[in-house]
Amino acid sequence: MSSDTTIYQDLRGLSAREVRMAIREGRYDRHTAGLAAGKLQCNLAILPEAHALDFLRFCQRNPKPCPVVGVSDTGDAFMRTLGDDIDIRTDVPRYRVFRDGVFTGEVTNITDLWRDDLVTVALGCSFTFENAFIANDIPVRHIEQDKTVPMYKTNVALTPAGVFAGEMVATMRPIREDRIEDAYRISGRFPHAHGAPIAMGDPADIGIADLNAPDWGDPVAVEDGEIPVYWACGVTPQNVLMNARLPFCITHAPGHMLIADVSETLEDQ
Amino acid sequence: MSSDTTIYQDLRGLSAREVRMAIREGRYDRHTAGLAAGKLQCNLAILPEAHALDFLRFCQRNPKPCPVVGVSDTGDAFMRTLGDDIDIRTDVPRYRVFRDGVFTGEVTNITDLWRDDLVTVALGCSFTFENAFIANDIPVRHIEQDKTVPMYKTNVALTPAGVFAGEMVATMRPIREDRIEDAYRISGRFPHAHGAPIAMGDPADIGIADLNAPDWGDPVAVEDGEIPVYWACGVTPQNVLMNARLPFCITHAPGHMLIADVSETLEDQ
Repeated sequence: MSSDTTIYQDLRGLSAREVRMAIREGRYDRHTAGLAAGKLQCNLAILPEAHALDFLRFCQRNPKPCPVVGVSDTGDAFMRTLGDDIDIRTDVPRYRVFRDGVFTGEVTNITDLWRDDLVTVALGCSFTFENAFIANDIPVRHIEQDKTVPMYKTNVALTPAGVFAGEMVATMRPIREDRIEDAYRISGRFPHAHGAPIAMGDPADIGIADLNAPDWGDPVAVEDGEIPVYWACGVTPQNVLMNARLPFCITHAPGHMLIADVSETLEDQ
Repeated sequence: MSSDTTIYQDLRGLSAREVRMAIREGRYDRHTAGLAAGKLQCNLAILPEAHALDFLRFCQRNPKPCPVVGVSDTGDAFMRTLGDDIDIRTDVPRYRVFRDGVFTGEVTNITDLWRDDLVTVALGCSFTFENAFIANDIPVRHIEQDKTVPMYKTNVALTPAGVFAGEMVATMRPIREDRIEDAYRISGRFPHAHGAPIAMGDPADIGIADLNAPDWGDPVAVEDGEIPVYWACGVTPQNVLMNARLPFCITHAPGHMLIADVSETLEDQ
């Protein structure tokens, strides 16, 4: 199996289903940004049913970082409300496996790890509003520079539920001052994809010490006339799951998302 | 205890907390329409934890009739994310109790029925967009005529989850043709309160035989130049709970809602 950029280019223009088939058959295991344009991409949390009610309560109480867009039946490997024939064991490019809160490895399918008590929770992702930004001529710096969006631990407390608690992880995108209002309005249209920003301006206000030293992803420069704007990030639930030290859980690898058949606006739902 | 219209008038202008205290202390047990203006009012489903995960899955899959705005911890009688000191056992004017799917009675508090395994799910309500209609000069006929909104069983299938399944219940409001677009846009701003309409026009399209014979509430006339418009209704989950024949569950009585401290736009969340 090879996963070079030639193959990424080959996938552009294919349908969500065709991309998932390439992933399922082991022909692609890299990031999904820009693939199956217009289709919803999802963060994933796969966890034992014993913790699923508390996790859904946690998501309900923290909808900006954890916007639920799909929940599987217990033990059902298919995400039936998000599309046709979406096998959660094979259709995501890369998964991360955690045991007792410790990251134990990244794998390209979880068929051998599947259990009858697992519940999959799919969460919206920032690709949705980034696509809307690009369509509205609001530049997205990390995409222009082919980097991963910078992500930061913040001091913004989350509302706990059972063992799930902690602080929000935020992404930062530099926005030109005259487009700030548009950026709030446009991302606000997508509550299922983190919605409007959580803050803008001084990173210290939300407990970020140094914008040039993100906790995940790559730093991007804030240019003259731009303001750093912060959004709730889908890494938050991963972080919270890890801190909860569940005996067993699985997430997607950042950037390696589930691509659904439903549209990213959810207008067909 | 008396509950006459004098007392309803006395409650107008009071805060959400003050209204809840009047209800808690047995001074008021009637409908909550128009009380604590601007505050979120909620439909309620109170059910054993054993069924809560499936019920939340059902709500996630059917967000128009079942928009979740709060979920209690198991056995916790307080709705901590919706306000301060909201005791779900006493702060709702009227409750309906169901055993094995059979309605067994309406009560004004559930203190003696409370159990350590109960989970309360709060769902948004159409009062939110009706208030926005009135603020935007879109008349709401049943309010003008001091009636209960007409509610109808439809043939719109819901996406099942576990024992929860069935068809959507819809409300109907006659809207003047030149305000239809506004009505869609304004209600669409409140996905947590049933959102945009599910249909408009011919009632037969969604399986309603006779607009003059609603299954719940009062009929209202559709005048010349008006079109009947249909919204998903918060009676849907009550109906689904009853059909699921749970051993035990409690709902609010229609129109007798929980009044939260958070704003009906959820902008303070």
